[in-house]
Amino acid sequence: MVGIFVFAVTGALVAVRKHLDVFAALVLAGVTGLGGGFIRDVLLGATPPAALEDWRYLTVPVAAGLLTFVFHPTVGRLERVVTLFDAFGLALFCVTGAAKAVSLGVGPVPAALLGMVTAVGGGMIRDVLAGRVPVVFDGVLYATPALAGAAVVVVLDRAGASFAIVAAAGFTTCLGWRLLALVRGWRAPMPRGPANV
Amino acid sequence: MVGIFVFAVTGALVAVRKHLDVFAALVLAGVTGLGGGFIRDVLLGATPPAALEDWRYLTVPVAAGLLTFVFHPTVGRLERVVTLFDAFGLALFCVTGAAKAVSLGVGPVPAALLGMVTAVGGGMIRDVLAGRVPVVFDGVLYATPALAGAAVVVVLDRAGASFAIVAAAGFTTCLGWRLLALVRGWRAPMPRGPANV
Amino acid sequence: MVGIFVFAVTGALVAVRKHLDVFAALVLAGVTGLGGGFIRDVLLGATPPAALEDWRYLTVPVAAGLLTFVFHPTVGRLERVVTLFDAFGLALFCVTGAAKAVSLGVGPVPAALLGMVTAVGGGMIRDVLAGRVPVVFDGVLYATPALAGAAVVVVLDRAGASFAIVAAAGFTTCLGWRLLALVRGWRAPMPRGPANV
Repeated sequence: MVGIFVFAVTGALVAVRKHLDVFAALVLAGVTGLGGGFIRDVLLGATPPAALEDWRYLTVPVAAGLLTFVFHPTVGRLERVVTLFDAFGLALFCVTGAAKAVSLGVGPVPAALLGMVTAVGGGMIRDVLAGRVPVVFDGVLYATPALAGAAVVVVLDRAGASFAIVAAAGFTTCLGWRLLALVRGWRAPMPRGPANV
Repeated sequence: MVGIFVFAVTGALVAVRKHLDVFAALVLAGVTGLGGGFIRDVLLGATPPAALEDWRYLTVPVAAGLLTFVFHPTVGRLERVVTLFDAFGLALFCVTGAAKAVSLGVGPVPAALLGMVTAVGGGMIRDVLAGRVPVVFDGVLYATPALAGAAVVVVLDRAGASFAIVAAAGFTTCLGWRLLALVRGWRAPMPRGPANV
Repeated sequence: MVGIFVFAVTGALVAVRKHLDVFAALVLAGVTGLGGGFIRDVLLGATPPAALEDWRYLTVPVAAGLLTFVFHPTVGRLERVVTLFDAFGLALFCVTGAAKAVSLGVGPVPAALLGMVTAVGGGMIRDVLAGRVPVVFDGVLYATPALAGAAVVVVLDRAGASFAIVAAAGFTTCLGWRLLALVRGWRAPMPRGPANV
């Protein structure tokens, strides 16, 4: 739920910065917080998604969206805190996403990918709806830590480790890598040569 | 079917105005008319969607798309009529969407949201495919009436009212609010302060 | 698999030309190669999609994405070859997409449409994620051959022809039409009058 809240705040912030209305803030909060899990559940055929069966999941992005819409100058100043919590959300989602895929009997490679999709999918829908190219495409090291964390979950689960160890290892891998990338300014490889579009 | 037709006309109009080809007119007509219901059915796991099981649903957007593509100068002049019928479509879809979600056993909060998604989802896909930020994000009161109509459906259904009364009340709520918003120029709240992107 | 590979190369090429990072190249390769089939399977309720059950499907776009990212100046020069293979992929996908829909008991009209969606859907997601209006909307004769090929598959299957004949006829129809459109520069009808957006 903390993960959903933080992701939802980033969604609402994008809406406010694009000067969209309060409905956009709520929708972008909702898709950012819940979208990744929706994609995973739809692809796995595990419908309706958990968030539609328990209404409390739905109140979290609504609250996050309204709070951000009203207090956005304050939230905007807390950008570093949001980025930090966003890294926690990322680590949380890649672990739960991969764990759910594994528990539904998917093979290891798709399970790791679905863990990553759970973590970054919501943000990609947010960016497409807000009319911009997904920020994860722009050289920030964001999806790679999520994939790494999900892969750790899958591998350790195969090795028979207990869920607590599996989750802790995946979470730490993703969070550590992401924070290091933030602190050191690591960038993903870009294509050689000038852009020609 | 009337709702699908009107929504499909708005989709094809967007294609024509962006100077896209006849295929785009058909696709945008199709996603606008059927997209909201597809999202609802996929999230509910009620697949394949009804529109894929009865080919007559599919002919409606094709007809609407072709007619709009050929006669678009005329349709463009009838913009006010289209907007009026679009409000009818909105009211119709939020009621049928919420009713279907309730009949499939979803809880009240998600059912109301799915009613709104059925009504506005097609238009959002249309706008994303046409390369623009969804118009529902831009301060027009469009999604809120749909959510209100869907909520009325859910509440009255819980209270045990007959389907005719439930549907009529939800339809009237959404249509009335939307038409009032159009006539009086009501706007959704925008964020305070200047846009900073 | 050849079809997935070629489609994935076009996805990665778009990422490189937009100067996006290596992750974007992999994601766009993945959605272009597999996205059409995912949409079809999700709409049909045939989840999880085949590509998630057999990890070899997933390695194809990864390989295509990495190769294109590293050797993109060479791949860019081979644009004509890519376009040629892309036509093969299109013909292959519309046939397999329509055949799968028919085998799952969908009616003829939706089956033909799903064949087309399998062939062009991945490219449309690619373009939306890359922040541009889908190229299939821009007057190139691309979706129409796919629809024709899928329709041939559906009609011949109804007539009781063997799968080999059905597949060969659909494949030839789509490929022939697409190649003729490329060679002769055929264009889809555009709306009359000037663009007014």
